[in-house]
Amino acid sequence: MGKIAYIKDMEEWKEEFTFSYSIKVRFSETDMFGHLNNTVPFTYFEQARIEYFKSLGMMQDWVDTKHETIPVVADLQCDFLHQVFFDEKLNIKVKANKIGNSSVDIHYLGLREDGVPCFTGRGTVVQISRLSGKPVAWTEEMRELFNDGLKKQPQS
Amino acid sequence: MGKIAYIKDMEEWKEEFTFSYSIKVRFSETDMFGHLNNTVPFTYFEQARIEYFKSLGMMQDWVDTKHETIPVVADLQCDFLHQVFFDEKLNIKVKANKIGNSSVDIHYLGLREDGVPCFTGRGTVVQISRLSGKPVAWTEEMRELFNDGLKKQPQS
Amino acid sequence: MGKIAYIKDMEEWKEEFTFSYSIKVRFSETDMFGHLNNTVPFTYFEQARIEYFKSLGMMQDWVDTKHETIPVVADLQCDFLHQVFFDEKLNIKVKANKIGNSSVDIHYLGLREDGVPCFTGRGTVVQISRLSGKPVAWTEEMRELFNDGLKKQPQS
Amino acid sequence: MGKIAYIKDMEEWKEEFTFSYSIKVRFSETDMFGHLNNTVPFTYFEQARIEYFKSLGMMQDWVDTKHETIPVVADLQCDFLHQVFFDEKLNIKVKANKIGNSSVDIHYLGLREDGVPCFTGRGTVVQISRLSGKPVAWTEEMRELFNDGLKKQPQS
Repeated sequence: MGKIAYIKDMEEWKEEFTFSYSIKVRFSETDMFGHLNNTVPFTYFEQARIEYFKSLGMMQDWVDTKHETIPVVADLQCDFLHQVFFDEKLNIKVKANKIGNSSVDIHYLGLREDGVPCFTGRGTVVQISRLSGKPVAWTEEMRELFNDGLKKQPQS
Repeated sequence: MGKIAYIKDMEEWKEEFTFSYSIKVRFSETDMFGHLNNTVPFTYFEQARIEYFKSLGMMQDWVDTKHETIPVVADLQCDFLHQVFFDEKLNIKVKANKIGNSSVDIHYLGLREDGVPCFTGRGTVVQISRLSGKPVAWTEEMRELFNDGLKKQPQS
Repeated sequence: MGKIAYIKDMEEWKEEFTFSYSIKVRFSETDMFGHLNNTVPFTYFEQARIEYFKSLGMMQDWVDTKHETIPVVADLQCDFLHQVFFDEKLNIKVKANKIGNSSVDIHYLGLREDGVPCFTGRGTVVQISRLSGKPVAWTEEMRELFNDGLKKQPQS
Repeated sequence: MGKIAYIKDMEEWKEEFTFSYSIKVRFSETDMFGHLNNTVPFTYFEQARIEYFKSLGMMQDWVDTKHETIPVVADLQCDFLHQVFFDEKLNIKVKANKIGNSSVDIHYLGLREDGVPCFTGRGTVVQISRLSGKPVAWTEEMRELFNDGLKKQPQS
């Protein structure tokens, strides 16, 4: 597990997540190799991340087409630890790992029903202006919302 | 073939298409039964329909977020004649079958490389107001664009 | 509503559903027109249909790669009654409308949280041989499972 | 650009690609923020990677259900450099960066029509046994096929 650059200690890292979103693997998400297609965990990451943002009260503004800013993904990665199959129930855990000026490093953990990690991931989300496409700094209120989430967990 | 309500005579119907869009079945579009998942032809229909609209010069306005109207799908159906597999090259044919006041009945034909139909379909597209969601009648110019397409083919 | 050929009386038809599956619209399922993309309800239909088959005890055999038969979709249609948006919770109702020799006509109803239908649909599922691709008749046991479901509802 | 760990020198890195696959952004691949959804480039990576494997003569065995091995993705990442929009034509470039015993590190470059990179990526593909799920070493022939591709480019 030491090979995953963004995870120093897997057991410690796992303990830091406080937010979790549950999904079930759809038939249309499998491929002809009989397992979950490798592109689908990124859809799970997005859905879980949005639920996480909603839990912080942030998503509501961003989906308002009159709101000035939107969050965009600057980079995204996934490490696939075990094949996943049709109809499996997964828990997708999400946490803000590090907060930048206009960005946030989000970590992800996909757990099978038996508690075994099947994939992990991370990625930077940047708040940009809907019009200019330029980064827009978090407000103090937003930083506090992320920090409140971070406080619940041991710092990494 | 007489079972498909929107096709009176398959051979005649096939001849009426003048617009065609080529696609190749992606790996991620297969499912664990080893063939193209049944939800994917609707994505092909959308893509081919948009290319058809573009060929008529219509799509450009609709994707302009400042334009008043957008096209929406009111109904959609597909008849699956043969299983389709990874990496097959398909021709998706599109035609406007009948023009209403603010709607158009679009027909679809999916052909394998050997010329055998693998699926057929149809569906109504309605032009609506982006703001109110209410139907907006085609302009004379738009009706003529559809009719020019229809004139190229024997009337159904 | 009289325009939807497979629904004689909407109120009566709605009452006949006994199975229901709940989904939430994902961000990745929206498109640049700001609403649920028209291809996605077919994914919901598939997922709800599979849960319905599972509730009858049928799906377990079909996803076993050593099992002789698989269910395939012979035709599929959807009528879009209202635009659907990000984060809406929908109930997808499923029923077996009519049982053939090796096929079953499945009906679908998508309800918003306020109980308003946003889309309806239907489609034929056929049991085929994994090897030959030819239709395979339902066993007596399977016919009874479908009929048990039908008995719970007023006959259509 | 120095921030992307797998790219030492962007200009040099760009020159090393010899295989390219062309795609066009589909309407259903956009989301309500009006651009390409962040999960879709991974689908492009898969499709371009498979075309690359096909060009080496490898994919044909892997999609044969009687063949002993399949390729699976062990990790995958994408850096999003510019927003991508509906109907854009992209060139997805692919190269084998480094060959392991049973794995290969694949690099990806997405170019807009004007030649500007819109996303880059990389990921490990491992050959595993269809039955046991365990890694299976490349044959000498396969190593040579990858190396032939590598020889065409300056070593990285």
